[in-house]
Formats: sequence, C-alpha cells, structure tokens
Amino acid sequence: MSLTVVTAQERMQLAREASRSVGLLSDAAKSALLHEIARALDAHVEEIVAANAEDLARGEAEGISAGLLDRLRLDEPRVRALAAAVRDVAELPDPVGHVLDDRTLDNGLHLQKVSVPFGVVGSIYEARPNVTVDIAALALRSGNAVVLRGGSAALASNAALIRVMRSALSDSGVDPEAIQTVDDFGRDGARALMRARGLVDVLVPRGSAGLIETVVTESSVPVIETGAGVVHIVLDASAPLKRATEIVVNAKVQRPSVCNSVETVLVHRDAADRLIAPVVATLQEHGVTVHGDDEVRGLAGGVVPTTEADWSTEHMSLDVSVRVVDDLDGALAHIRRYSTQHTEAIVTDDEANAERFLKEVDSAVVMVNASTRFTDGGEFGFGAEVGISTQKLHARGPMGLPELTTTKWLARGNGQIRR
Amino acid sequence: MSLTVVTAQERMQLAREASRSVGLLSDAAKSALLHEIARALDAHVEEIVAANAEDLARGEAEGISAGLLDRLRLDEPRVRALAAAVRDVAELPDPVGHVLDDRTLDNGLHLQKVSVPFGVVGSIYEARPNVTVDIAALALRSGNAVVLRGGSAALASNAALIRVMRSALSDSGVDPEAIQTVDDFGRDGARALMRARGLVDVLVPRGSAGLIETVVTESSVPVIETGAGVVHIVLDASAPLKRATEIVVNAKVQRPSVCNSVETVLVHRDAADRLIAPVVATLQEHGVTVHGDDEVRGLAGGVVPTTEADWSTEHMSLDVSVRVVDDLDGALAHIRRYSTQHTEAIVTDDEANAERFLKEVDSAVVMVNASTRFTDGGEFGFGAEVGISTQKLHARGPMGLPELTTTKWLARGNGQIRR
Repeated sequence: MSLTVVTAQERMQLAREASRSVGLLSDAAKSALLHEIARALDAHVEEIVAANAEDLARGEAEGISAGLLDRLRLDEPRVRALAAAVRDVAELPDPVGHVLDDRTLDNGLHLQKVSVPFGVVGSIYEARPNVTVDIAALALRSGNAVVLRGGSAALASNAALIRVMRSALSDSGVDPEAIQTVDDFGRDGARALMRARGLVDVLVPRGSAGLIETVVTESSVPVIETGAGVVHIVLDASAPLKRATEIVVNAKVQRPSVCNSVETVLVHRDAADRLIAPVVATLQEHGVTVHGDDEVRGLAGGVVPTTEADWSTEHMSLDVSVRVVDDLDGALAHIRRYSTQHTEAIVTDDEANAERFLKEVDSAVVMVNASTRFTDGGEFGFGAEVGISTQKLHARGPMGLPELTTTKWLARGNGQIRR
Repeated sequence: MSLTVVTAQERMQLAREASRSVGLLSDAAKSALLHEIARALDAHVEEIVAANAEDLARGEAEGISAGLLDRLRLDEPRVRALAAAVRDVAELPDPVGHVLDDRTLDNGLHLQKVSVPFGVVGSIYEARPNVTVDIAALALRSGNAVVLRGGSAALASNAALIRVMRSALSDSGVDPEAIQTVDDFGRDGARALMRARGLVDVLVPRGSAGLIETVVTESSVPVIETGAGVVHIVLDASAPLKRATEIVVNAKVQRPSVCNSVETVLVHRDAADRLIAPVVATLQEHGVTVHGDDEVRGLAGGVVPTTEADWSTEHMSLDVSVRVVDDLDGALAHIRRYSTQHTEAIVTDDEANAERFLKEVDSAVVMVNASTRFTDGGEFGFGAEVGISTQKLHARGPMGLPELTTTKWLARGNGQIRR
C-alpha cells in the first residue's frame, strides 16, 4: 500500500475522513485490527530491518552518536518486541463508550456524558522509530486516526513501518488513510501538522525539550505537553539512611536516561552530617558522578562542584546534583524554582512533613518514601503509556488509553423546550 | 487597594505567588471570601456605576452601537445581580480535593489521583464588565488566582470592579494579588498574557469568533476554546409537526443572541411538503427572518434566498436558514461541513435514526427531540458556567467549576523501589 503523494493538508484531510469510520469500530474490531498489525510487523520483519539499515548507514556516515544510533536501530528482536507490544495494546480495555456522567433534568431530558475518540491524533517525535508503531497502535485502539511526523534520521524505517501498518489496515477492511505521515514533507510537514486546526484534534510531541518547546510555541492545534523531568528527592531531617540510600540510588541508577530518574537531591541541614557521606559514597559505587555545593563537598569526597545550570538540567545520564537546604521550606522553594513539575519525592518519617509535601508540591506526581521511577503508565497499571503529561490541561502525569479520548454529551428528550 | 504599576510580567508573577496560598484555602474560607466580595460589590455600587458612566460616555462619544452600549451598562440592579451571582458561586460545592482514582500497587505503593486548582487562570474577554466578576469568582471558588484582560471599552468599569474585589481579598486576609489585571497595558498586556507559559496555567477567551481565533493562534499558554455556535436542527422524515415547530421556534426565538440558538434547520425531503410551510410561517409570526434555498422558497412565502455564507454564519439575531436535504446522510454531511461542533439536534420518531445521529455527530452536545437552548451550565445543573467548550481537550460542552481544576497523583509508600 503506497502513499499517494499529495499535500500534507490533503493527507490530513484523508485522516479526518478515515477517523469517522475508525471511530465507529467496535471494541472487537479495533482489537482484531491491532492483532493484524502485529502479524504484519512480524511478517515483514526483513523489509523493516532492511529499511532501518539504510537509516543506520546514513546516520553513521553523518557521524551521529553511538547512543542515537542505538535508539535508531531496529533489529529482528526489536521488531518482534514492537509487534508484541501492539498485541498487548490490543488486549487493553476499550476506552470508548464509557458513561462518565448521567443525569435526568426535572423536565425529563436525559443527559449522558460518554467517552468518544478525539478523531485525529497527531504526533511529532524524534529518532526512535518504535514511537511510530507505538503511537499508531494507541491511537487506533482508542478509535482515532493518526498523523505521524518522525525524525528525519528514521525516514526509511518509519516509511517501512507505516507501509506495513497501512497494508494491515487494508487487509482488515479498515480505511488505510487512518494512518498518515507527513515525514516526506520535511519541515513543511511538521509546520502543516502544527497548524492543522480543524483537521487534527490533539498533538502529542515526544522528544527533547527543544522539540517540545517548538511544538508548544508554534502549534495552533491543542498540544499535550510531555515534558522533561528535572526530578527532585528531598531527604528530610528524619529520613532513615537505608531507605534514603535505596530510593536515591534506585531513582538515579535503575535507568538514568528516562524522564522519571532523579536529577537533584535536597538534603535537610539537620540530616546532612548523617546522610551525605554514605549516600554519596553509595551513588559513586554505582558509577554516578555526584555534583554538589560547597557544603556537600565538605562532607563527601570526589564531588564535582555544581553550577547554577545543574539545578535546571535533565542529565539523562549517571549524574546527580546534591544540595543542602535549611529546612522543608528551603526544599519547597528550590523545587518551585527549578522543577519541571514532573515528579518529586520526599523521604521522611515525619507524617506532618509528608502531608505538607504532598499538599504543597505542584507536580504531576508527588511521592512519599518511594522511588520516582514509579511515575510510569506501566507501573501505574495502565497497560500502556502515551507519554507523561507535565501540563495541567486534559491530562497530568502518566497517560493511558483513556487520555486519548474526549467526551460528548448525549441528550435524549421527547420535545423539551426551554421556558 | 490600588494596583502597583509594575510590568504585566511582574503582575503575573505576583498572581503565581498568590496562587499558592489561595490554593491551600479551605472550602469554608473560599466560600467566605466570595461572600465578602459580594458584600463589597453591594457596598461600592455607586463607585462602580460612576466608573461605568465614564465608559458609557466614552462609548457614546465614539459611536458604539446601542447593543454594545447595553452590554457595557452597569446600573444598580445589574451590580446587585452580579453580587447575587457571586453568592450563588460561594454556595457551590468545592471542586478541589476529590479523589478521582485510588489504587494500591502490588508492592504496596498507594496512589491517589486528586483534584487540585490549576494555579493561575487567565481570561481575555470583550465588552461586558460582568465577566470580570464572573471569572474572578469562579476562579477563586476553585482555588485559583486569576489574571484578567477585559475589553478597552470597559476599562474604567473593570478597574473599579477589580479594585473592589481586591479590597475584599485584603479584608478577608487573602493575598489581593490573587486578582490581577493587565488591562492597563493595552495590547501588550494581552500579548504578555498569551505568552505567559509557566506563569498562567490556562487561558479562557470569551468573546467574538475573531477574539477566540486570535487567542488560539497566538497563545503559548494552553487555551480552552469557548467557541461560536453554528447550531443545526434536523427535521427527520418522521418529525411530528407540533414537536418540530415548538423545538425550532424555541431554539431560535427564546434568546437569539446566544451561542446555543439554532442557525440552520435541515429538513428531510420526505417531510418538506408537510413541515416547511407551517414551520416557516410560525417562525415568521415570531418575527424571524427565514432564509431558504430554492426548494424552501417554493414551499413557503416571504423567504429570503440563502447564500453560501449563511451556512457558516452565527447570526446572533432573529435569522435562521432552512435547507432541504435528501436524507439523514445529507443532513450529516451538511453538519460535518458547516458545524462548529457546539450543539446539534434531531427531531424524529425513528429510534434508529436518533441513535445514529447521537453516534455519528461529532459535537459537544448532540440532542434528540429537545431544544438546543439546553446546552447551558445552568440548565445542566452545574450551578455556574465558565463557558461552553467547543474543543476536545480537557473539557467539552458546558464547563462548571470542576473544569477549573486539574489533578495530581499522590503516592504514599514505605520505601518502594523499582526492580
């Protein structure tokens, strides 16, 4: 199934039209469609890996980093893992058709607020071609058409994945125009997508802070911001050493390249002498480069001096910044200033401080005595994750399938008029 | 309490800071605060009417229309009605602190999703100074600070209302910076508000389609679009004459200047001979100018010919357009093309057509056998209305106080780390 070369605008118009029939598919039909996509990915694994090899060769020739190359790579196990992930999404409960409010007015008019698909979901993302399949599967499972705009580094991989998925749609009797790409229009494609108000209902950017900033600033389509995580852990005066160490190490080391890993540890002055040396030493044993202010450097060895930039940096690496604060107020003030409102945690045995932290910290997820790595759709039990919203409109924190739906009110009357 | 003249940016920063304490106010404190605002409005009615007289005099000198002058006018009964409306909002249930999801993970981590205030709500609106009080009351009741940008025509009125409300905040021991205006910065104020990402959490424009278009296009702050209503009523083949006439007349005549009044009536060809002449005649008896296509004009007298522009025009007046369509598919196609996705209704005795209409029409409110005038927060039983959202993100249809809140996840653990 090849894409007709039309304008980006026309592609989005086709997605809009396809969204009508996709939105009316039954739970069973949507699930079957995803199983067909998974089957097609498995069946075309060689074609996909070959397309990916083109991207890898071009990337190597252009000298992109080893980390980026790894994120770009699709070998057979990765394609099969992608297909398996699509099967998992197929088995999730249908988010459409739930009655969220039900009221009958005094005049007998019966109102129901029901969940319905958005219509057309757009996504602008970088490098990793697995996002192409991921977003398409989540969008279709929730009854939406999708318009994709992936990174130029993955152009051939994304084209192959989209070709395979569109043929699976056709084979399932579903309008293949429900999966669209504007990749082949370069920057103009991204711009058209960001300006497609009326054709695209919501835009989910996934990628670097710079990409997200651009989309939020330039888009007239409503955006769900999935943002960077400058994540904090506060070690309160009462924090027990073992729990503090385990949580900080887990939050940094278990997977440092993701948004829910910790970037800054704030230590209550009354606990600094007791906690800083052993926590820093354990982090260093795990290969972490610890950055610290003068006070921290006075208490622990091998600590790199912090700069002002450290406090607002999402390292995505085995680096963490440590600062001593006067008290809980000092910790809260630091968080207000530097947090990206993703996830913050406190380690404490003081119930009042725990509750104050939960109440006053204005972040998507606020934790007491747990690793920030739990901010994750899978861990929350959503079965899949669309992204982690760091904005306050529509969705906040990990987003599952229900966040790809909107609502409408159905009103059933027998001739009611307003007096 | 006079406003310190600082920059628009600094004002919004003050609102951000004030939002912290306002967000922590108890239900009782917020309710008492609104009663104090109502009391202050009553106590300063002369000052407010005098300020309004300045705006009216300037408006008259500038030759603005009688309709606009009426919307601008604040006489004593209107100020007292405003105060009464604030008291009504004071008595509404607190939308903050509700537990919307509650789950405990296998490892014992307890997750709760709770409703919390947005923080800072911005509004850009035109002419009517009552919006100043309306939005401020709704924002404060839901624990938010507010930044207002009203129309230049109501500059003196809005300044007086804001002065009175801010003094009521001070008298209640609440930070008066929780109510801000950027009116005195003219267009720069509006621009600063639309660009205040990080300071303002959500922006609600209220006014003309042009104003809303500007805000949606230029704002980097997330916007809730409260849009125009090109509202349709379909008279199906089976529509009984009496019910069809009552609903169409009510939807147009009961209050023609609002967004939920009908603009276009689509008549099934099989019912055209039976319905068009009497429905048009009754509309005309109520002073409605009926616009119609050739077919309609062949069936009823005194009908103005329609132009293409009619189908996408929100008249806000006693004008309605009537068109004959081949069947339900024809009606649905017309609606897809011209609707602003606000409210559409069908009058029918055919259950299957009713259910198909409910399922396939992609509007905020879809009705069967009822007047479109019911799309209203008050009618829906919300007690107050922030506006009617015509977008799909965050809120759709009439918005009450809960739509001025967001959520956060609270996670309570005892040392959980991720494996």
